[in-house]
Amino acid sequence: MHAPRDLPAIAADILARVRARAPRVHCITNSVAQNFTANMLLAAGAVPSMTTDPAEIREFVASADALLVNLGTLDGKRQTAIKDALAEAQGRLPWVLDPVFVDRALTRAAFALELAGQRPNVMRLNDAEFSALAEEQASPAALERYARERSTVVGLTGDPDVVTDGARTVSIRNGHPLMAKVTAMGCAASALVAACLAVESDAWHATAAGLILIGTAGEIAADVARGPGTLAVGILDALHGLDQRTIVERAKVGS
Amino acid sequence: MHAPRDLPAIAADILARVRARAPRVHCITNSVAQNFTANMLLAAGAVPSMTTDPAEIREFVASADALLVNLGTLDGKRQTAIKDALAEAQGRLPWVLDPVFVDRALTRAAFALELAGQRPNVMRLNDAEFSALAEEQASPAALERYARERSTVVGLTGDPDVVTDGARTVSIRNGHPLMAKVTAMGCAASALVAACLAVESDAWHATAAGLILIGTAGEIAADVARGPGTLAVGILDALHGLDQRTIVERAKVGS
Amino acid sequence: MHAPRDLPAIAADILARVRARAPRVHCITNSVAQNFTANMLLAAGAVPSMTTDPAEIREFVASADALLVNLGTLDGKRQTAIKDALAEAQGRLPWVLDPVFVDRALTRAAFALELAGQRPNVMRLNDAEFSALAEEQASPAALERYARERSTVVGLTGDPDVVTDGARTVSIRNGHPLMAKVTAMGCAASALVAACLAVESDAWHATAAGLILIGTAGEIAADVARGPGTLAVGILDALHGLDQRTIVERAKVGS
Repeated sequence: MHAPRDLPAIAADILARVRARAPRVHCITNSVAQNFTANMLLAAGAVPSMTTDPAEIREFVASADALLVNLGTLDGKRQTAIKDALAEAQGRLPWVLDPVFVDRALTRAAFALELAGQRPNVMRLNDAEFSALAEEQASPAALERYARERSTVVGLTGDPDVVTDGARTVSIRNGHPLMAKVTAMGCAASALVAACLAVESDAWHATAAGLILIGTAGEIAADVARGPGTLAVGILDALHGLDQRTIVERAKVGS
Repeated sequence: MHAPRDLPAIAADILARVRARAPRVHCITNSVAQNFTANMLLAAGAVPSMTTDPAEIREFVASADALLVNLGTLDGKRQTAIKDALAEAQGRLPWVLDPVFVDRALTRAAFALELAGQRPNVMRLNDAEFSALAEEQASPAALERYARERSTVVGLTGDPDVVTDGARTVSIRNGHPLMAKVTAMGCAASALVAACLAVESDAWHATAAGLILIGTAGEIAADVARGPGTLAVGILDALHGLDQRTIVERAKVGS
Repeated sequence: MHAPRDLPAIAADILARVRARAPRVHCITNSVAQNFTANMLLAAGAVPSMTTDPAEIREFVASADALLVNLGTLDGKRQTAIKDALAEAQGRLPWVLDPVFVDRALTRAAFALELAGQRPNVMRLNDAEFSALAEEQASPAALERYARERSTVVGLTGDPDVVTDGARTVSIRNGHPLMAKVTAMGCAASALVAACLAVESDAWHATAAGLILIGTAGEIAADVARGPGTLAVGILDALHGLDQRTIVERAKVGS
């Protein structure tokens, strides 16, 4: 088992593997996030696909290396596609659940609970979404219990991010407040985690890596951004140009 | 009643309230505009949501502070969502109608007329769209009559913008021609008006404020843009960074 | 018949005509690409529309000057819209087929083959997509045979691009590797070809022009880009600012 202090180097290594292998990441994600998510995956070195049609979804998933299930702009067709995609994915490729806005609609929360029961390798969410799903506040102890009971990794983004599999817990203090002013930033973080999962079987490592990478790229972009517009553009440049040394220098991980 | 010369300070004050209260703006908008609209709302300080599924729409609207109904990429599902959203919104939160491209399809124009009969607080449109709905040219007198007869505020964007509630009419000469080369700029303007309506009950003030803010931000962005790409990015930065003094200095309002 | 060496000047002339006439290009395209495609068309001087609803599609196509059919994020509704759009377009306006990802799903490939039988004026695709449709490798001879047998123009993007109508073949060596790291770049290229087709009846000239324009703009953007984010923004600026002399100086065409 690696200690948190090894995570920056592990994140750098995972990024190198994403670039070398160019994994295919199939994303069932909301229509607001599709373009930015695809560009974030390309900037990391992965290959995105985005179809949500039930007639095609199984073939796309079958040839993918990881799957992202994001519940934004959910509808009946996406629900069917998600079920078919998970039937295809189970036991064959890892998947990430991003339960967007489950704190805003009961039907969405119910569907998310059903999906959470299907053993996502990772759940990436924020405080409000965790509270809606777990029916308790997002304390470190609550996150650990949730992860342990469901055999999943929880990647909670906030200040700081917390990543736990129930046994191992790390906090990550990268990123910049301006990132919250760019739509789909969390969705893109989940997609990056999926790309990392495609090349790294330890889901706790993959999740920490994904969040370190987007946080680090966000900081670099924020250093020169003049607002949320240039930040959204700059984070793609920064992720594309990230090198191992910068990741190790910038990553702020702790227990 | 405020005279037009007070509008710049009112716009600055409304923006300050949007930033302080972070109103939730639910947007039923076209798939082309969703990402840019969400980023524009975030840049202004509001919180966007975008789902269009009839199963969820009522819950999202119920917890929102304003609603945008934009008819781009309309389809049967969006029509159902719009009807449900308006049933939820009526009398509870303000809403803006943006009848995109009603000059291009008769079925869309018919649906827009039906919606226009449901008392939108504001209609934001351009010359061609007004002419298609009102069946007359968009003269100041025609706009005023239309607003008065329907108890709505008309916000017509063009050169200049004209905002009228039938009794009060103001023209706004902010903005830049390059803004017309960025897709969804009008859609984003309508969303900004909705954000202003969420914190300002005088719909004429809110509409003028929304158009002053986007026009001012567009000018600032155009000062340094190298084309429509950097303009679209820069307007988000400019809106995020707008301060009261700049708004008051730059706003060009008149009768 | 013009020799390849005339193509740069022809491309510049076609762009001038797009700017002068502002043709309407209706795009049935995937949800990932819609925003970038619309902005690319606006940057070139064309007017995009994007609805995919069967109830409206015929009216939008009837008032358009060219049609783009892109198979990304295909679903049953888009399939119906495509059939209706083609019924409206046939013999009245030119259309471009972009068979995105037909190498990834058999049902999509079958639909693409059906569409390829309906005489698209141009098919814009990449190596993998051509191989999936033609069931052979994308050699120059194979492209020429395919174009000749189907009376279409094939615009294959890669390194180099190849444009052939079976009798005339040209290779274009513009562009930059970073363009492959921006989602929907190929989709936007197809849309530009459609805009060129709206003002130029020789589909081979229009296709070569579209690919020269996007390749040239991409190079100019790459000269100053810091990564894929600034490239995607910069290509819109560059296309908007392209002048005749730059096109002629930069275009790299050959047999």
